[in-house]
Amino acid sequence: MNIIVFGGDGFCGWPTALHLSNVGHDVVIVDNFSRRNIDNELGCESLTPIQPMRTRLSAWKECSRRNIDFIKLDLAVDYYQLIGVLCDVRPDAVIHFAEQRSAPYSMKSSCQKRYTVNNNVNATNNLLSAVVESGLDIHVVHLGTMGVYGYGSAGIKIPEGYLKIKIDSESGEQLENEILYPVKPGSIYHMTKTQDQLMFSFYNTNDGIRVTDLHQGIVWGTQTNETTMDERLINRFDYDGDYGTVLNRFLMQAAMKYPLTVHGTGGQARAFIHIQDTVKCIELALRSPPAHNDRVKIYNQMTEVYKVRDLAKLISEKFDVPVDYITNPRKEAAENELSVDNRLFLSEGLSPITLEHGLLQEVAGIARRYMDRCDISRIPCTSLWVNREQNEGLEPSVS
Amino acid sequence: MNIIVFGGDGFCGWPTALHLSNVGHDVVIVDNFSRRNIDNELGCESLTPIQPMRTRLSAWKECSRRNIDFIKLDLAVDYYQLIGVLCDVRPDAVIHFAEQRSAPYSMKSSCQKRYTVNNNVNATNNLLSAVVESGLDIHVVHLGTMGVYGYGSAGIKIPEGYLKIKIDSESGEQLENEILYPVKPGSIYHMTKTQDQLMFSFYNTNDGIRVTDLHQGIVWGTQTNETTMDERLINRFDYDGDYGTVLNRFLMQAAMKYPLTVHGTGGQARAFIHIQDTVKCIELALRSPPAHNDRVKIYNQMTEVYKVRDLAKLISEKFDVPVDYITNPRKEAAENELSVDNRLFLSEGLSPITLEHGLLQEVAGIARRYMDRCDISRIPCTSLWVNREQNEGLEPSVS
Repeated sequence: MNIIVFGGDGFCGWPTALHLSNVGHDVVIVDNFSRRNIDNELGCESLTPIQPMRTRLSAWKECSRRNIDFIKLDLAVDYYQLIGVLCDVRPDAVIHFAEQRSAPYSMKSSCQKRYTVNNNVNATNNLLSAVVESGLDIHVVHLGTMGVYGYGSAGIKIPEGYLKIKIDSESGEQLENEILYPVKPGSIYHMTKTQDQLMFSFYNTNDGIRVTDLHQGIVWGTQTNETTMDERLINRFDYDGDYGTVLNRFLMQAAMKYPLTVHGTGGQARAFIHIQDTVKCIELALRSPPAHNDRVKIYNQMTEVYKVRDLAKLISEKFDVPVDYITNPRKEAAENELSVDNRLFLSEGLSPITLEHGLLQEVAGIARRYMDRCDISRIPCTSLWVNREQNEGLEPSVS
Repeated sequence: MNIIVFGGDGFCGWPTALHLSNVGHDVVIVDNFSRRNIDNELGCESLTPIQPMRTRLSAWKECSRRNIDFIKLDLAVDYYQLIGVLCDVRPDAVIHFAEQRSAPYSMKSSCQKRYTVNNNVNATNNLLSAVVESGLDIHVVHLGTMGVYGYGSAGIKIPEGYLKIKIDSESGEQLENEILYPVKPGSIYHMTKTQDQLMFSFYNTNDGIRVTDLHQGIVWGTQTNETTMDERLINRFDYDGDYGTVLNRFLMQAAMKYPLTVHGTGGQARAFIHIQDTVKCIELALRSPPAHNDRVKIYNQMTEVYKVRDLAKLISEKFDVPVDYITNPRKEAAENELSVDNRLFLSEGLSPITLEHGLLQEVAGIARRYMDRCDISRIPCTSLWVNREQNEGLEPSVS
């Protein structure tokens, strides 16, 4: 297949591009380096020494004898260049990672709120509009998030996209219907993903665009079979308070022998998936596109659910570091339960890597190995969901 | 109250600004003249001779002895100027009309699709973000549309925003819940209004912003008590295929003694409201803001439901013109039923103007009076929902 990976320089995009190239697809990466530019803005950098795109691609050619092309383009802005790229590459599928993906970053101030909405919504709309305009039959695969559901399932096993409901009609009769699972986004970032869903649904209904939307859990792990082939291929590892997910921050703290900082009670349940499983899932999603005239196909791309305090306990015990409970910067419930249906990927052959078995490798292979590059002061999350005054009234809880 | 009307130069915004000024509020109009600029783009103009803003405002001062201020600002772009305006005016409420509001225009080509998404989503997000940043307690009133529901209610009386549902839980027990009524937007324009809903919900939940969202039907009529006070205050009347709603196009055709062009079978039901009732509803919505900590308050701002063929029949008989059935440019069901709950406004004192009684005035007072300004060639809708080839396969239906 000819495949374009939008956002192919990022944490998920880069290993996905390599994996798809490795299994035989012809891959083109499109990126505007926004993630590296935000590192500059925040004064952070990946713990792992990621290389410039040119170095990455020549290393890949050396290792695999395979070529990946690169095009610098801003998906939210460069629409006519995008049309040119689609007509030139004539992709069978495009993978859309080209969105600002940090919830804390999206809540930092009005500047980041506005950037996240503008970038994410326009990127998705440009892509869909360009696919229509190109007249090509392109399968659009998008990285969504489990977070659109607001991390609460209250007695429901979260289905893969669609929820069966019953409604009382005017005549009193009970009607059955199936709807997109109702959303409850917890940040501006998550909100943009709920807006994406509406665009996928519209372009699917109006223009027959085939779309697969992957509602992903929190991705952990750094390396995949491909990124370990050469150190120049190494993937990003973010541990800062904005882009570092809760697990990466714990791993870094464990490696540095600092107490693990749990926001609030740690009572919140989150869905997780290893980066190696992410790239496998995308390969599987490409193999089973929705049929023409099918609705948007939605997978829950996650493999395990953990409460944050249990995750802290696991790491605390394995690496002998204490746990610190601190005030939660987010506005969210202190405790929640989460139950997720992920039968689609399991039925298509996914065999998950578990946190229990993969953590040691992460701490030893990444966090300890590169700990001299760590700026410990960057680990705490400094973005607040509401202003300081209001925040003091909040229940402490967990991210 | 201090009130800012965003989009106060437009078809709904202008009579709203005058009405609110007339009942004693201090009104500031903010607009970027995008509607007049789109007239230039399309080579159309209002049938009625609308005046430049400066003329409108001085005429209003002469008639009413009241002052309305005007600020030129692009809500989707000029964020820091917007913050300045909020801090300067310190409004108690803002009315948000500042969106591209034509469904056919939003489907014209990728250029108009992208403009509509970019303008509407960023305008709403900028407004909400600025209200948060200002720290002021501002009631946000937004003009939404009944069209978010896709014009089908299939046995359900469409409630005012929220739908009670039942879901089977994991344990088999039936759970009750209340959700935003599921959306089914029929155009890019309508899609942006569904995205707006998600932003209102998020900023309401996260930041406690008080929001009233008015899900409006198709507005008909041209004049209000205020716009008739002086001809220089006259409101827009759009009759072209993009901005002219179905009723205005019929009225124009009736005045010109041309056959009424019904798209498809005319079997689609639509909700309607007179512009005089629109401005009354906004006044009522301002009087009853949601309480602090309330969810978004949603009204169905409509007064009557008609099938398009019945509307054509009404006008055809009243004005003795024939009806022509032509292919529908939209992708939509040929027939639908529509039942809408609008008890909120009725209970707050709205006494609707009906189509049956108000139509004659429109044809005589507006369409016939200004018919020498009409370009009959602009009446047909030339925007297609899908490209020509695909369109030929569609069921003819109605707009």
